Amino acid sequence: MEVALVCVGDELLAGDTVNTNAAWLGERLTERGVDVDRMTVVPDRVAEIARTVNEDRARHDAVVVTGGLGPTHDDRTMAGVAAAVGRSLAASDEVFERLTTEGGYANGDLADGTTHIPEGARPLHNPEGVAPGCVVENVYVLPGVPAEMEAMFETVAGEFEGERRHVGSVAVDEPESALVDRLATLQERFDVTVGSYPGEAVRVKLESADEAELEAALEWLRANVEEA
Amino acid sequence: MEVALVCVGDELLAGDTVNTNAAWLGERLTERGVDVDRMTVVPDRVAEIARTVNEDRARHDAVVVTGGLGPTHDDRTMAGVAAAVGRSLAASDEVFERLTTEGGYANGDLADGTTHIPEGARPLHNPEGVAPGCVVENVYVLPGVPAEMEAMFETVAGEFEGERRHVGSVAVDEPESALVDRLATLQERFDVTVGSYPGEAVRVKLESADEAELEAALEWLRANVEEA
Repeated sequence: MEVALVCVGDELLAGDTVNTNAAWLGERLTERGVDVDRMTVVPDRVAEIARTVNEDRARHDAVVVTGGLGPTHDDRTMAGVAAAVGRSLAASDEVFERLTTEGGYANGDLADGTTHIPEGARPLHNPEGVAPGCVVENVYVLPGVPAEMEAMFETVAGEFEGERRHVGSVAVDEPESALVDRLATLQERFDVTVGSYPGEAVRVKLESADEAELEAALEWLRANVEEA
Repeated sequence: MEVALVCVGDELLAGDTVNTNAAWLGERLTERGVDVDRMTVVPDRVAEIARTVNEDRARHDAVVVTGGLGPTHDDRTMAGVAAAVGRSLAASDEVFERLTTEGGYANGDLADGTTHIPEGARPLHNPEGVAPGCVVENVYVLPGVPAEMEAMFETVAGEFEGERRHVGSVAVDEPESALVDRLATLQERFDVTVGSYPGEAVRVKLESADEAELEAALEWLRANVEEA
């Protein structure tokens, strides 16, 4: 299963907010064996949201969209997603019901548009806030506030499932450039994918669908480098 | 001036690394009056890098690419950018010269490919590391290690320049949904763009090219909300 993330918000583009949502979702999806293939941050503009969601949903099994939900004028995500799937926005009776009965909101408390999701979409309840999310076609729409996004993602996490990958890494106390040949050998000999990430030490990360293969590769690597 | 960022790296997609580079560049470019319109994270694969850089450079004045530089097999950025602009990769004499004379590297220390950049590109010196960056057409290629990326960006920062924006914000102690009408009024009355970001308080952020207009809008806002 291959997934793309689309994060909506001018504040992410201006660097006012670090995109921890993308990292959190990347980690949770990868744990579930899903390949996260692309992450895009787009501004609070309907046309840009629609174009990006539209392209990504054609190329990937599913798209997870975060941010820009809510009743204020700069929350354009539902309109963008509706445009991407060629549907109108409509007030959802199910969302209204949930917010007024279980949520404890009176009708007058809810700002115009709070219950609007693309027509025919499956609403997702927001366990930590007001703004609902939804699933429409292969697009999952979640809020931008991290606690709300995380809680809502957990309600649909079971719908994301891929081949579990086994992961291990070795910290190496040699310059990255010195490792080139050994990393190439590693990739030839074992059925693993290899990444190297320089920092204080170079972290060499191995991944495989086969746990025994991963262990053998890690053992070979440890025997052939200077560990940090 | 409108810019897109492309960050390369499987570790960003898997959530192993939070994309602080994108936030840092977003902030520096916005300070310089440049609109950052799009940020994309792509895997360490030549075809994906090439497609994304190619699309973005057609739509924006410039593209800043970070990450995936260096000599190891998972560093595919130079090949991807070369493909995006239809050029070959070639060893750069200028880079070789700099690394061996000023950089203190002997020829044998440099892994194969270290000096390779797209043919005809302008090399960018890495003040904090080995891997060079480059500028080719309207594409700026910077390293992924934050200290290296930041130092290299500063050497070309003067090439990014737009209309300076004035920014101010007010922390509001009311629910975001209650602010809808007042934020709409604000946007009608003043020549400002308005964003609202819920957190412990709701942060309302205003931007304008005109400082007096921004100040007037901030004053009106403070007089009409419950400040946190």
